[in-house]
Amino acid sequence: MLESLFRPKSVAVIGASTKEFSIGNRVIRNLVDFEFKGPIYPINPKADEVRGIKAYKSIMDVPDGVDVVHMVIPAKFVPQAVEDCGIKKVKNIIINSGGFSETGPEGEAIEKDFLARAKKYGIRIFGPNCQGIINSDPDIRAYCNFTFTQPDVGYISIVALSGGVAEVIHQGFSEMGIGTRIYASNGNACDVTIPEIIRYLGEDEGTRVIVTYVEGLRDPETFMTVAREVAAKKPVLAMKAGRTAEGAKAAASHTGGLAKEDLATDLIFKKAGILSFRDEGELIQAAAAFATQPIPKGNRVGVITNTGGPAVIATDVMVGDGLTLPPLSEKTAAFLKENLYPEASVNNPVDVLATGNAAHYRACMDSMMADDNYDCLYINFVTPFFVDTDSIAKEIVAVNQQRIKPIVCNLITDRRQWTETVKILQDGGVPCFSLPGVAARALSAMVRYGRILEKEAGDVKTFMDVDKAGAAAIMQKAVASRRKMLTADDVYGILDAYKIPTAGWAVVGTAEEAAEAAGDIGFPVVVKADSESVIHKSDMGGVAVNLADAAAVREAVSQMQAKFPADDLKFLVQKFTPGGTEVIMGAKAEEGLGHLIMFGVGGIYVEVLKDVVFNLAPLTSAEAEDMLSEIRLAPLLEGVRGQKGVDRAGLQEVLLRLSQLLADLPQIQELDLNPTLAFEDSACVVDARISL
Amino acid sequence: MLESLFRPKSVAVIGASTKEFSIGNRVIRNLVDFEFKGPIYPINPKADEVRGIKAYKSIMDVPDGVDVVHMVIPAKFVPQAVEDCGIKKVKNIIINSGGFSETGPEGEAIEKDFLARAKKYGIRIFGPNCQGIINSDPDIRAYCNFTFTQPDVGYISIVALSGGVAEVIHQGFSEMGIGTRIYASNGNACDVTIPEIIRYLGEDEGTRVIVTYVEGLRDPETFMTVAREVAAKKPVLAMKAGRTAEGAKAAASHTGGLAKEDLATDLIFKKAGILSFRDEGELIQAAAAFATQPIPKGNRVGVITNTGGPAVIATDVMVGDGLTLPPLSEKTAAFLKENLYPEASVNNPVDVLATGNAAHYRACMDSMMADDNYDCLYINFVTPFFVDTDSIAKEIVAVNQQRIKPIVCNLITDRRQWTETVKILQDGGVPCFSLPGVAARALSAMVRYGRILEKEAGDVKTFMDVDKAGAAAIMQKAVASRRKMLTADDVYGILDAYKIPTAGWAVVGTAEEAAEAAGDIGFPVVVKADSESVIHKSDMGGVAVNLADAAAVREAVSQMQAKFPADDLKFLVQKFTPGGTEVIMGAKAEEGLGHLIMFGVGGIYVEVLKDVVFNLAPLTSAEAEDMLSEIRLAPLLEGVRGQKGVDRAGLQEVLLRLSQLLADLPQIQELDLNPTLAFEDSACVVDARISL
Repeated sequence: MLESLFRPKSVAVIGASTKEFSIGNRVIRNLVDFEFKGPIYPINPKADEVRGIKAYKSIMDVPDGVDVVHMVIPAKFVPQAVEDCGIKKVKNIIINSGGFSETGPEGEAIEKDFLARAKKYGIRIFGPNCQGIINSDPDIRAYCNFTFTQPDVGYISIVALSGGVAEVIHQGFSEMGIGTRIYASNGNACDVTIPEIIRYLGEDEGTRVIVTYVEGLRDPETFMTVAREVAAKKPVLAMKAGRTAEGAKAAASHTGGLAKEDLATDLIFKKAGILSFRDEGELIQAAAAFATQPIPKGNRVGVITNTGGPAVIATDVMVGDGLTLPPLSEKTAAFLKENLYPEASVNNPVDVLATGNAAHYRACMDSMMADDNYDCLYINFVTPFFVDTDSIAKEIVAVNQQRIKPIVCNLITDRRQWTETVKILQDGGVPCFSLPGVAARALSAMVRYGRILEKEAGDVKTFMDVDKAGAAAIMQKAVASRRKMLTADDVYGILDAYKIPTAGWAVVGTAEEAAEAAGDIGFPVVVKADSESVIHKSDMGGVAVNLADAAAVREAVSQMQAKFPADDLKFLVQKFTPGGTEVIMGAKAEEGLGHLIMFGVGGIYVEVLKDVVFNLAPLTSAEAEDMLSEIRLAPLLEGVRGQKGVDRAGLQEVLLRLSQLLADLPQIQELDLNPTLAFEDSACVVDARISL
Repeated sequence: MLESLFRPKSVAVIGASTKEFSIGNRVIRNLVDFEFKGPIYPINPKADEVRGIKAYKSIMDVPDGVDVVHMVIPAKFVPQAVEDCGIKKVKNIIINSGGFSETGPEGEAIEKDFLARAKKYGIRIFGPNCQGIINSDPDIRAYCNFTFTQPDVGYISIVALSGGVAEVIHQGFSEMGIGTRIYASNGNACDVTIPEIIRYLGEDEGTRVIVTYVEGLRDPETFMTVAREVAAKKPVLAMKAGRTAEGAKAAASHTGGLAKEDLATDLIFKKAGILSFRDEGELIQAAAAFATQPIPKGNRVGVITNTGGPAVIATDVMVGDGLTLPPLSEKTAAFLKENLYPEASVNNPVDVLATGNAAHYRACMDSMMADDNYDCLYINFVTPFFVDTDSIAKEIVAVNQQRIKPIVCNLITDRRQWTETVKILQDGGVPCFSLPGVAARALSAMVRYGRILEKEAGDVKTFMDVDKAGAAAIMQKAVASRRKMLTADDVYGILDAYKIPTAGWAVVGTAEEAAEAAGDIGFPVVVKADSESVIHKSDMGGVAVNLADAAAVREAVSQMQAKFPADDLKFLVQKFTPGGTEVIMGAKAEEGLGHLIMFGVGGIYVEVLKDVVFNLAPLTSAEAEDMLSEIRLAPLLEGVRGQKGVDRAGLQEVLLRLSQLLADLPQIQELDLNPTLAFEDSACVVDARISL
């Protein structure tokens, strides 16, 4: 679909300028400097040529078809220019100019106008208010962009609305000597969207890794669908900024959007199989490794070094990130004892010593590649002047090109002096970093991605024993009644319909009925006032616990009747179930995304520790299990200090049934099962609320 | 003291070699290339000259005095060569050769031998098994080192045992275009130690910032004393590696030391006022900022940008690190509305737009420097081709040189194209970084250091109401008895002597005495079996709680007597005090460092969350207060969900009295006050153990 945009055969520039320091001149210069393979058509009503290239008065005068038009003209002239392009059958327009929806209602109207015209003619619009695209494919070499980084040919593609961050990332690769494939920064993105570009990059064979930066998702559902599809084919690495309230505000101020701290984006990344980063440096460095390395099959790393301290730093980082450094197999150890200097340290890390030569490095790499104890290799390589570092580099390249297990290299050198060594490694596709911790983190990102790939997504289980129709009927009635909070009768009725275990319950109107219900349920019981007007019922005396007999129940109900003179006052009588571990579950509707589901350990510690985790409905069994494991207090659920753990399977089932309930009843705005009590062999909701 | 080592007037090289790829040749080449200001004397029995410099057969033949001798000869020849140097009155020897204590007992013997000879003549030894030193002072320019980084003149000094990591750091500065002052990597450090070097750097006027890397401290006490003294004069930035068990093992393997995870190093850093880092990149980048910037007086940052996204990333990082972005003062806002483009975003961050020029940047900087809302400035500066970036750089430099408030700059550019802009900023001492998050973290490190400076160390309070002699007498008796665990009588006696509040207690021998004591203390009580042979007494039925009357006490004692037939069996009768928040306090002797004191919230959550903090005795009041605030569950102590908080002052006093007790009784190996119960208006130790 976006083929003619990213692989244009010809490019015209409306607003081509003879002024050196203008965008309308720079785009042409960039196309020429980057050696664009097709014709360039400057459009300028007054000049005969721009930068030595024949110019045309109008797009109409261009003698041939045009795949991409740049527009670098004031906003008010854009609609007519689009119209002209339509007549000329232009396929794509990159609108570099600003002055549209980002500036307010007037600009927004112009944007709508030109977009309608473009749609009429089937033209795709990239931008407006954007940098543009770059494609380094040797057959194309399209630099349809006014920015400054001149990329080498590479395998990483970059896509972001923000030109500033896209440039930071692009320049980051350039400074590492890493090429890029496609670069796309689409500003206001009024037509061609980020998900659409990601889908294209997924299909582009030259793209091995996709890197993206977002400050928020405009259409989360489409993003998730596309990202999931593409992430199944190649690694997608993403960073989300605007995480803090202040960051979100800064983002809102430069995009004209609304400030919003955005929890859902992380969950979308996770569900789509995107590798998420919180640091742009780590994103860049990891991408450099992904561009040339296979994905590790596990987390076991073999470390080779010719200098002690940097291996210690790398070890700390990797172990901190969950990687392990298993010992050498006997075979490897024996081989290395034979083949290294006698003073070398034959362990993991293997220290070949600063005097270690190419044969020593090769011996380490070969034996560790063959050693089943390792999934990947980390290499420290300082370049002493007294060894032949070019030969060492050549051996690293030779092993790297076998692509048996991934390698990262921390190269400690002066890149101005050891130019040949650096070049050998770079040309040989060895990801080289300048700091031990950085190289270590790039490797651990690959391991993290390997875990994502390994993980069974799992199925979304559908429980067949639920009474969907019954719950829907309750919901319909509640919607009709225009209540915001459902009655206890409705809430527990819905939970019963989905077989979510609750403490035995009844809703009654009088003290006598309450006493009778309590007798049926079995003492002791809890009585709770239920009325839309009684909000914080436990603070207001609307809850009586541990009532041991009928008299106590009658007394409690009478007191509540006296206290709350509401017309709709009813009483929820529930079995009193002391003990157990308090957990909380909840759900909240997110626009365009269905429901967020929350799980955490309850009680006072939640308030202090905020120890809750989220995921997006619908949950798979694996996801429900993960939620139980991801909280910090997870060991509590498994049992500590000799206590038995709780019924994890039961809790997972509650989460899955809740997920199904939410899918069936999208009207639910918020839902709380707080607390749910987890016992050794059961789980049981003891308080629940649903709002619409 | 180390003046002649770091500012040598002449350098000789014993083992000077005519072979290009030898250390004995390289050192001379480095001295020449770096333009050493004094004479160089190659010592070589066979050659007349080395690298064109006249060589001498023996050090004895050198016509003048020698401040520094390099030794690059096999280990076995070193003792005699040292002897020769002694006769020649050489002041310092840098032994680059290895083969000494790092290789085993034989090498160790040689090291001892040459060291004794050096001491005899008053020669200082640097190394052995080391790189050496560099001093970039234009009057000296001593490159007494065989490594490869050629530093510019600068203000940062680097010191580390590990040559590999010292080189990583040094090369890191070089790649950023940042100079260094003194570089010292002393390998085995058999004579000149790291603390000694740090003290020298503290006195060196050209050193503004000291950077060090450690894997463990050999002499923690001296390190702390010196670091404290030096950190009071200039910033000391440090990183400790070998934090994970695996990292410690890797460190042990390359230094020949023992693997040890080292909690105390962090505490020493903290107590000495050293700014500690966990990432070598952050250490390097922060040092670059410290080298030229004043220390911020607070955490309020003003952000200036000409590109949106990178400001969002920086904001996230800074806010995450505890910095704030206050709004512009009315005056600043009004001024900027007048002086920026109308479309500019006049907020914090201020976005001058990509088209923003030098005057716009200057307006922002001037007004924010004058605005009391800000303690420091963060600048994003992308270099669009259509603005005069050199002029912007000049304005940033001009404001930077006023040194009103610290500035960091994230410079988004191609350093190969914008060479002049980069040079202006670099020469102007503006710390420039290539990633928004990196610049943000450098600034937040400076803010963190500002907080250290601001913090009142506080005094170590001495309580005069303690019975030091009484406690010492108990301790002496206990030591004499050769017990490992003190009896309850002794433990509570010592706590009483230091007026550490405990639940009312008595130690008795019989059921009858127990009943009587309980009567005196007041029911209910707890009875605990006390015998050296009863270890896990609560698991074994050695604890009976909530005993309400004399009969119950007698019964409990009888049962314990039946269960534990130990000769030394006694009974601790204590007041039973239910409720309160469980906290734990403890102490542990650390070799050469006195005691580590621990504090945390007790109960099951400690086990899961490991929510404890440590500090080194003696504690100041401020430190005791910090310990209460630093645990994650700190809000629990202040009261949550409408509960009142606990007696923080009381807990602090217990910590301070404990600290005094530990200072007076250094024989204590481990001490546990677990649990201590904290109530609204009191704190009370209910179980205590002391081991020797």
